[in-house]
Amino acid sequence: MAGMKGFSQITIVGVGLLGGSVGLAAKAADESVRVVGLGRRRSSLDKALAIGAIDRASLDYADALAGADLVVLASPLEAYEDNLRRMADCLPARAVLTDVGSVKGPAVRQVARILGPKARFVGSHPMAGGERKGPEFARADLFANAACILTPTPRTSPGLTARVEQFWQSLGAVTLRMSPARHDRAVSAVSHLPHVLAALLVALQDQESLKVAGPGFLDTTRIASGDSQMWRQILLANRAAVLASLKRAQGQLKRLGGLLASDDGPGIARYLQAAKTRRDELVASRRARQE
Amino acid sequence: MAGMKGFSQITIVGVGLLGGSVGLAAKAADESVRVVGLGRRRSSLDKALAIGAIDRASLDYADALAGADLVVLASPLEAYEDNLRRMADCLPARAVLTDVGSVKGPAVRQVARILGPKARFVGSHPMAGGERKGPEFARADLFANAACILTPTPRTSPGLTARVEQFWQSLGAVTLRMSPARHDRAVSAVSHLPHVLAALLVALQDQESLKVAGPGFLDTTRIASGDSQMWRQILLANRAAVLASLKRAQGQLKRLGGLLASDDGPGIARYLQAAKTRRDELVASRRARQE
Repeated sequence: MAGMKGFSQITIVGVGLLGGSVGLAAKAADESVRVVGLGRRRSSLDKALAIGAIDRASLDYADALAGADLVVLASPLEAYEDNLRRMADCLPARAVLTDVGSVKGPAVRQVARILGPKARFVGSHPMAGGERKGPEFARADLFANAACILTPTPRTSPGLTARVEQFWQSLGAVTLRMSPARHDRAVSAVSHLPHVLAALLVALQDQESLKVAGPGFLDTTRIASGDSQMWRQILLANRAAVLASLKRAQGQLKRLGGLLASDDGPGIARYLQAAKTRRDELVASRRARQE
Repeated sequence: MAGMKGFSQITIVGVGLLGGSVGLAAKAADESVRVVGLGRRRSSLDKALAIGAIDRASLDYADALAGADLVVLASPLEAYEDNLRRMADCLPARAVLTDVGSVKGPAVRQVARILGPKARFVGSHPMAGGERKGPEFARADLFANAACILTPTPRTSPGLTARVEQFWQSLGAVTLRMSPARHDRAVSAVSHLPHVLAALLVALQDQESLKVAGPGFLDTTRIASGDSQMWRQILLANRAAVLASLKRAQGQLKRLGGLLASDDGPGIARYLQAAKTRRDELVASRRARQE
């Protein structure tokens, strides 16, 4: 089979940080693969061309999708609906479709509704990106050792899931599988709630406290420098799960406040030590994965 | 005047990460200064001697304090009471006393109560340290560009405050002044609350969500890997201010939950954008300070 894991032409819909990095990483993994960028703004496409993330750029759906055997939807979540509608008529029947969005339930439902049950779609969520935006920050190694979650449904063919999995692995990612609903619950706790808490932490400082902010504060709030429009879309798309995580956070805050109000030193130390142990283990397991 | 900013012998009480770094930084700034380490465990003192953070080690208060013109109390907060009592009889009358503790109101009150109004004390809080513990992590540049807050009271002589300020500046710190109460309020918001939220974020993950934790989660929770016993002491010592900050965090969580529940996209984006702008400005001002 020619090309990368059986994919000889990849069309990337939306060449921002993630889309651009998919292009760079795919070319780095297999220089014979042909990467086409589909976008709405000439300026982003030109940047992606300039850094070699794509071989060809197009503003036209039919043109960009012709000949694609893998299509990676990497647009903002709010553009999924429109992108899928425009793709519906010109997506080659044999093309495999995946995406890079941070919320999976709505994407799976949109694809089924707009492209129908025959669409060869498996949702993906590479856990990478950071707070930067735009193809100028794209990197060929963005997915190296990053987790990438695939969210097949009971209707997804196992062979299709395996092909998309192999694609991400060839970009360096460590893949795992989860149902869309479990994924959305997991990221509401481990990604979306941290974002909300980081923003909240910045919001409740005053001039006096910001003066004395140390490195710990800057680390804890780093993700609050992420793109606010992108995060608005993520939080709204995953609303129910994020609200449930916010409620759990409120419960924990109440519990910690109770320990403190009752001067319960041993209880506070136990709480902090359990968190420390758990995080230290997580860091150790991540290091082991990278070695 | 001989020695460093008029200090020719510095005695450091407690040679952990901060005490050891004070020694290393003082010797780096002025190799003629004599640094004595006072501690309770021979092992920590030996490590501090081995890395050159102190010139001489002692387990005896009278011995270590004799001849000191600057004494830096760098023990855990819970040992302040006992240390100050043991120092009371043998602290040279001319010695300037400061500390490095993260909570200042209780320290100021303890010094006044135990050493009396004649004690030449100014509280200090260098915002540096990170989550590591022990003299083996001490660094001569730990205070370089770090904020160090001094907390003189209306009774503190301005000349004394200026001398302690010059001392920290000679170690590379950027000093500022605040009353003990304002300091404790400020750090409850910018340092202690982030610690609580980081621990809480780790606590409410499950196995599923930890599997998909990305770099953002690791950054946001880094400080949760701090020493749990040290943090128990900090949170309890600053209990009232921390409880007030927890209450404000609960209010913000409720507000954000309301925006999300009512699907208020523009409201969410405004909240996130305000936090982003504020944090980006903070980062820019810190960069400017280091250049």
